[in-house]
Amino acid sequence: MGLTPVERAAHYATRSPRFAKVTSKHLAYLHSVLDTPCSATQRRGKMLTEAQAIAPFNVDWMGQIEGAAPAVLLPTSTAQVSEILRYCQAERLAVVPQSGNTGLVYGAEPVFDELVLSTHLMNAAPVVSTSTMSVEAEAGVILQQCQEACAKEGLLFPLTMGSKGSSMIGGNVSTNAGGIHFARYGSMHANVLGVEVVTAKGDVLNLMSTLRKDNAGYDLKHLFIGSEGTLGVVTRAAIKLFPQPASRQLALFRLTDFESVLELYQLANSHLAECLSAFEVMDGESMTTSPAAEVPYERVSKNDVFRAGTSFSAAYFCVLVETNGSNEGHDFDKLSGFVEAAQSKLGDRLNGGGQYEPILSQSATQTEQLWSLREGVPVHLASGGLIYKYDVSFPIDKFYGIVEYTREILYKKEKMNPDEVIVVGYGHFGDGNIHLNVVDLTRSHVEQLDAALYPAVYEYCAAHNGSISAEHGVGMQKRDYLHLSRTPGAIQLMKDVKTMMDPNGILNPYKVLQLE
Amino acid sequence: MGLTPVERAAHYATRSPRFAKVTSKHLAYLHSVLDTPCSATQRRGKMLTEAQAIAPFNVDWMGQIEGAAPAVLLPTSTAQVSEILRYCQAERLAVVPQSGNTGLVYGAEPVFDELVLSTHLMNAAPVVSTSTMSVEAEAGVILQQCQEACAKEGLLFPLTMGSKGSSMIGGNVSTNAGGIHFARYGSMHANVLGVEVVTAKGDVLNLMSTLRKDNAGYDLKHLFIGSEGTLGVVTRAAIKLFPQPASRQLALFRLTDFESVLELYQLANSHLAECLSAFEVMDGESMTTSPAAEVPYERVSKNDVFRAGTSFSAAYFCVLVETNGSNEGHDFDKLSGFVEAAQSKLGDRLNGGGQYEPILSQSATQTEQLWSLREGVPVHLASGGLIYKYDVSFPIDKFYGIVEYTREILYKKEKMNPDEVIVVGYGHFGDGNIHLNVVDLTRSHVEQLDAALYPAVYEYCAAHNGSISAEHGVGMQKRDYLHLSRTPGAIQLMKDVKTMMDPNGILNPYKVLQLE
Repeated sequence: MGLTPVERAAHYATRSPRFAKVTSKHLAYLHSVLDTPCSATQRRGKMLTEAQAIAPFNVDWMGQIEGAAPAVLLPTSTAQVSEILRYCQAERLAVVPQSGNTGLVYGAEPVFDELVLSTHLMNAAPVVSTSTMSVEAEAGVILQQCQEACAKEGLLFPLTMGSKGSSMIGGNVSTNAGGIHFARYGSMHANVLGVEVVTAKGDVLNLMSTLRKDNAGYDLKHLFIGSEGTLGVVTRAAIKLFPQPASRQLALFRLTDFESVLELYQLANSHLAECLSAFEVMDGESMTTSPAAEVPYERVSKNDVFRAGTSFSAAYFCVLVETNGSNEGHDFDKLSGFVEAAQSKLGDRLNGGGQYEPILSQSATQTEQLWSLREGVPVHLASGGLIYKYDVSFPIDKFYGIVEYTREILYKKEKMNPDEVIVVGYGHFGDGNIHLNVVDLTRSHVEQLDAALYPAVYEYCAAHNGSISAEHGVGMQKRDYLHLSRTPGAIQLMKDVKTMMDPNGILNPYKVLQLE
Repeated sequence: MGLTPVERAAHYATRSPRFAKVTSKHLAYLHSVLDTPCSATQRRGKMLTEAQAIAPFNVDWMGQIEGAAPAVLLPTSTAQVSEILRYCQAERLAVVPQSGNTGLVYGAEPVFDELVLSTHLMNAAPVVSTSTMSVEAEAGVILQQCQEACAKEGLLFPLTMGSKGSSMIGGNVSTNAGGIHFARYGSMHANVLGVEVVTAKGDVLNLMSTLRKDNAGYDLKHLFIGSEGTLGVVTRAAIKLFPQPASRQLALFRLTDFESVLELYQLANSHLAECLSAFEVMDGESMTTSPAAEVPYERVSKNDVFRAGTSFSAAYFCVLVETNGSNEGHDFDKLSGFVEAAQSKLGDRLNGGGQYEPILSQSATQTEQLWSLREGVPVHLASGGLIYKYDVSFPIDKFYGIVEYTREILYKKEKMNPDEVIVVGYGHFGDGNIHLNVVDLTRSHVEQLDAALYPAVYEYCAAHNGSISAEHGVGMQKRDYLHLSRTPGAIQLMKDVKTMMDPNGILNPYKVLQLE
């Protein structure tokens, strides 16, 4: 049942006749570019053309779409990227930039026979400066390696997320990656100080800087942050760092209803204020999917949740609250005051008659364990069946409505069985960013789910002042729903910018905008 | 001696023949647009054509350049702004958007006979939302009024600066205004959640949103933040708010040398960390210009400073350190710990043998007094003579070099007299943002200063990894020096964006980019 990844790719787009087919002449030229080091110390680039070597670059992280790139280009320098794109623009060869390939919206993989331009070999050790409190890193540096290089110098890299072990700086910048510390430290638009980009025409645009304030003309770097590699390829970035917190504390709460989560968040804001570094919410159903050993509170069976009544609301919510600060005593004081205030205000809605006391992490190991609860959720879900992931955002008081709405559709209208299809919600509450996940455990309801969920979920976003993409971007998956979050005027201006910067549309085609 | 404001304006540009002359037919049409309310509750707009009424709109805050606008247009709605710009684009009439007119780079005034489009009447009361922690304000709302509306709801507006009583939200967004809390709360790129803009073609672009995370396509608002009204007119903005700090503390330090300032900053970062909200530096000479009553430390005569030797370095530096936090006791603890660490590490470089003990503010009144020391500096300087203001940024360890370099040029090379021409530096240390001010007390050295300072100061920036504009923007004043901070490729892309969005170049001509 259902489409193969190749069929699913073709379902989203038709190969544009605008692009030339890649010939052996093209490949010979591109190989010669990659095989020429730019300096005596520079490594040679690489070109992969063997089917087996190319395979992982052709498929997305979820294994849902698959393209047929004839070659993967692995440059080692910005100059090589420039030569490649200049040539491809002139020859009308379509190119997909790819770094860690951890995206979730079909934005970084070939759809048909585009060339893959991978940043994997552009991964020199990041350069951390304690005097400017910034790091400069090449596009192929893995996020976690960048974090570790900064930590060594006592500095905190502002971005972190579940995919930190694979995702790369180039993709982080190009997709304006968000993650769990977004509410505290801000977006890539806030933290990127400078970028080096190769435009779709092959021009190297040096916008590198470590200056904090720099109002010299239009701030062009923002064109490349979050445009998902459709306007240029980010080859290097300079990113703002923060003092490494001396103290990191974590508390886990179990609440009976969504209203209580809202109240807890308001208490966190007033009691923890400048220390608050994460406020993550997971509904009971998303906890149920976690391996039993890791869940500190009792498990609730799916049936209890969904058969209890017709409201289809979650049986409970778990909340992880993290503080980062410079003084352990002060932070502990603040956290204790917060927990007390929560207990006094929420009473049994918080502790269930003493059954669900808040858990304050007592050690670094326990902190890791509690975080793994949250970080494990998407991994466990993905392993459970065919997964539909929706990354959407709302004003925070409407955070959870989309999950209840989806359950109404699937269980009430479509009469689906909660033992076969599960609907969960979890995410970054402070950002209004909820991850709605629908898992088809038996992989047998694809057609019914496709029809029931698209475009209903995105239309719900549009009707409730939400965004169809909070942090994952648009890619190919959400391209045709962009009009639900953006006005025709805004979409037209996006197209004008794209056409101006990439006249032949060679860079990451079929993604973000519907151009034909 | 020197140029009149009208001559100075003409010195920077030649009126472009591309623009039509404003005729009475044009004015009649524009008047009819402004005189038509968009709804029953909407006020009528206004058009000013009397010389006396127009006069204040024709001159910049420093009284240095003066244009000759034939009319000032004061719309009351976005729809009127749209009709005006659509008409002016079609008729090739040049338009200067203006809000508070507090800019310092000749960016918001007419140069010749451009029409002034003022946002003064677009000033409905700002709407503060405690649930989304954001404020929506029209372009003509005065910054301080916006701050006060937010404070009433217990929330902090992230921007503040000396001109808060006159500058307006439209200009704040369009110029990416910085100010004293930038290091803590970030830039307008970081804090603006959404904007409504009328493009140079007259299209209304609704990019309003209060969502924290929203990656649905290119983030177009960044095109309008900091492009100084050359691409569109910001008519409304939604801006992120922060919890109003329960505690605000301030300390004033007097240090003997710049090295000590750097050391003090490092201590502030480690001891105050998440509480640090401002770290402002003023050199001794900038303090000397303050009225005596307000200066807590002894005054140093200019002669002592500059005749002491050939190094031309400042005799001392004052540093204002502010904390904002949620718990007064914790913040006081942190501040005390910081002061102790500073005294122990810097010793006599900090307290001059007990003569200059740090001053910790004991009351709200004293806090106001200490801040007025800092905020008074530019005001006192401007009243002292003809002022040259340079707003530049550097990596923080090179923060003060530009002041010493300028003194070298003026006193050593040009043999000028420190009693007649003073050179001071002050600014936002954490952002590397220094305000270099040169004041010609006798107003009799204009030609010599012009020749000695331009382009020497900006070339120094370029040679030391600095920016020719930290927070004030480019305007007309720095337009021809943009190449010192931006590559030819970047400037070309700025021009391409401008041409695409404003085909006839009618919006804020002669500013930011040299287009002909």
